[in-house]
Amino acid sequence: MTTPPGRMDKEQFRALGHRMVDWIAEYWQRVESLPVLSRQAPGELLRALPAQAPETGLGDEGWDAVFADLETKIVPGLTHWQSPGFFAYFPCSASGPAVLGELLSAGLGVQGMLWATSPAATELEERMLEWLGRAIGLPATFFGPLGGGSIQGTASEAVLVALVAARHRALARGAAPEALVAYTSTQAHSSVVKAAMIAGLCRDASGNDALRFVPVDAHYAMDAAALARAIAADRAAGRVPFFVCATLGTTSTTAVDPLRALGEVCGEAWLHVDAAYAGTAAICEEHRAMLDGVARADSFCFNPHKWLLTSFDCSALWVRDRKALIDSLSVTPEYLRNRASDSGAVIDYRDWQIPLGRRFRALKLWFVMRHYGLEGLRAHVRHHVALARRFATFVAADPRFELVAPSPFALVCFRLRGDDAATDARNRELLANVNASGTAYLSHTGLPRADGSSRFVLRMAIGATLTEERHVDAAWRRIVEALAN
Amino acid sequence: MTTPPGRMDKEQFRALGHRMVDWIAEYWQRVESLPVLSRQAPGELLRALPAQAPETGLGDEGWDAVFADLETKIVPGLTHWQSPGFFAYFPCSASGPAVLGELLSAGLGVQGMLWATSPAATELEERMLEWLGRAIGLPATFFGPLGGGSIQGTASEAVLVALVAARHRALARGAAPEALVAYTSTQAHSSVVKAAMIAGLCRDASGNDALRFVPVDAHYAMDAAALARAIAADRAAGRVPFFVCATLGTTSTTAVDPLRALGEVCGEAWLHVDAAYAGTAAICEEHRAMLDGVARADSFCFNPHKWLLTSFDCSALWVRDRKALIDSLSVTPEYLRNRASDSGAVIDYRDWQIPLGRRFRALKLWFVMRHYGLEGLRAHVRHHVALARRFATFVAADPRFELVAPSPFALVCFRLRGDDAATDARNRELLANVNASGTAYLSHTGLPRADGSSRFVLRMAIGATLTEERHVDAAWRRIVEALAN
Repeated sequence: MTTPPGRMDKEQFRALGHRMVDWIAEYWQRVESLPVLSRQAPGELLRALPAQAPETGLGDEGWDAVFADLETKIVPGLTHWQSPGFFAYFPCSASGPAVLGELLSAGLGVQGMLWATSPAATELEERMLEWLGRAIGLPATFFGPLGGGSIQGTASEAVLVALVAARHRALARGAAPEALVAYTSTQAHSSVVKAAMIAGLCRDASGNDALRFVPVDAHYAMDAAALARAIAADRAAGRVPFFVCATLGTTSTTAVDPLRALGEVCGEAWLHVDAAYAGTAAICEEHRAMLDGVARADSFCFNPHKWLLTSFDCSALWVRDRKALIDSLSVTPEYLRNRASDSGAVIDYRDWQIPLGRRFRALKLWFVMRHYGLEGLRAHVRHHVALARRFATFVAADPRFELVAPSPFALVCFRLRGDDAATDARNRELLANVNASGTAYLSHTGLPRADGSSRFVLRMAIGATLTEERHVDAAWRRIVEALAN
Repeated sequence: MTTPPGRMDKEQFRALGHRMVDWIAEYWQRVESLPVLSRQAPGELLRALPAQAPETGLGDEGWDAVFADLETKIVPGLTHWQSPGFFAYFPCSASGPAVLGELLSAGLGVQGMLWATSPAATELEERMLEWLGRAIGLPATFFGPLGGGSIQGTASEAVLVALVAARHRALARGAAPEALVAYTSTQAHSSVVKAAMIAGLCRDASGNDALRFVPVDAHYAMDAAALARAIAADRAAGRVPFFVCATLGTTSTTAVDPLRALGEVCGEAWLHVDAAYAGTAAICEEHRAMLDGVARADSFCFNPHKWLLTSFDCSALWVRDRKALIDSLSVTPEYLRNRASDSGAVIDYRDWQIPLGRRFRALKLWFVMRHYGLEGLRAHVRHHVALARRFATFVAADPRFELVAPSPFALVCFRLRGDDAATDARNRELLANVNASGTAYLSHTGLPRADGSSRFVLRMAIGATLTEERHVDAAWRRIVEALAN
């Protein structure tokens, strides 16, 4: 019996691996010259690809065709998240050390569902979440023997498992399922209501009456007094408030919910903190005030893959009471039992998450934290915050524009002045023109007017790994030019 | 303003990238000489790592220390899933082309939540799922204009979104939430009950009475007549059967549920097919009979990351009615709206899954299918199936052992003959001895006796990319030797 055909031998893998590394290094160098937002029309790539897989594999020369297709078919269809001109949504920052970590993880190919299926994958993750938690100033209860950190794929998964743990705890305390009520602000991320839909709490994005959207103050932060009133009214009606999701750095404007005040009014409810974007900033002392009151939180999440150079996906979730999480997610068939797990001396991360299997994602966090050091990471955050302040001064100095929300981090929300539908349309057109230019890609949001209608607002989110002053300046020039046309 | 410190420049990334590629190539060559199951004790790596992240980053020479730590701290803590002696659980097969795909995905760093955020990521995925669906013989309804395929992280996530879509459809048809009942076999994967717990259908792994575990036949496949009786009884009691999860290739023994018969009795319920492991085999004509009746299924999942060389994570999920899935998971805040999505002409994969964000995983599927070609992939499967038959003949020829279940694919379930608790203990001890040897790593399962107790059974799952005849022979020799001691 022989080796099956097609196995890539050592020398071919080395040659192609080096070629791919070089291709990526070149890509990062030239990415700023490519249009940030893809100009491909729907179906273009679909039509350029054969309808069926090839019967025969590639020969020795075959990979030349793959690299050619990469250039002609894939690259034009990319929206370049790693471009220094990418200012849309929030960043999803890759870096050299993170890519090396992903490469190593793929090469090792270990699956760390249980401690036993690779102790190093579990223990490196435990330690990295401790490094990271200390770096942002989380209390040690979040990584002490009762609490703990884990890497989830995204903040959406983190809020879902937090919600499920909270429900499990509330039911265990005797609540009736139909009595449960959750709360978040009107400015919370869509993943909160998506989690409630998946968990069966509500049927659609309205939240029905199992998820309440608490009003925000003038700066788009949750109104703690309004939360207190909602909770009191629900209690009086026999409902059981079991989950509150606070946001540090909302998606629309990076507003910061008042964590301490929320903790004081949320009673027995599980308090989850979604700091997906802004959590990174807490590695800098000057941004740490937002964590005031975090010791009361039951779970805390932020995404190193957003602004901490760690490459998607890497969402850090800490819980104060790991047992609550594990109790709600643990199922142990015979085929997963083993001595280490039975001993209780180890963490099996499968019980901390939705999937069973998991990649070795702690490697990239390790590489990033070692390569940059905390000093380098802080400098990285401060660099982007300074660029955002610079951009905000451009906006403030131009009488045609207005800043529409505070910019505590590296997102600037702005728009052409005026408050009617025609101005909304002009802002929308301005955004389309800038994005069509290829120089920069910004996104938008809607912010509520007093009458309940939505104002169209441009979002300039600075945070790509390669963004420098000249890219921010070029984006502003492009905005002003688009206006002149 | 200058570049922040620590950014890895082009030449450093190239040099380290080449070094990492070479390290991986060497690792794959030497991995068979390492003990398959890690010998590390709980806490060993934790104690070897500092408690805090370094303040200062690595200098030019710093990465030598990282590579040294990799060797001395990480490798000893790995259970080597890519070892040719890895026969535990199911394989999680990496390959050269898949690792190149992961590397490229990390380097591009695009996040394909929406079509607009990288059209190529969405359209390559659409096409690859069509290639893959055709390759295993799925009807075109699963990738026609109404259906469609997507890459999920794991089969656990796939069954959860299928369950959520099924519930949404049932509620839309007027069912009361508390009337819903789901069904799967007693041999189904733990992820089915975990999904039901997350979705709020049941509180714990017992399923309560919202998830029924249907009995199996003598070969551990779901008993269709028993399912029919359970459904009839529930309907008579006013319940609404809304979800049936069939398994093609169960985890314990790779038993195959009778898909056509289940489809005939499941009525209006959503029929999900979990073929996580065995789906790969359907690329070979001789294994395609298990798909008989699949046209009735509402969703079908298999994991190319298990046995199709595609590196974890890559779970393929097809649905016949994409609208049912999207309706149950879609939430659209203003900041995610865009022209392409509003036109309805494109797929936004965020609405097909739990997370919002997603990696560009279609690249690795593309590389694998092109590199090997379908011929190469079929040869790969047949190679392992032949090795499993070889191993089964060793077992059958040794009077001390018995085969305890059919081996339709590349898993062999066996044990020392005898049916008392003492034999269970001897089998357990045999497994521990073999795994301690370092030569091979097998896992186990429990199979029900007539009296309800559990028989301890050894599982020899062949499927690692590097496994050849000599590794299977060595594993058998080790088993026999362990017995002699």
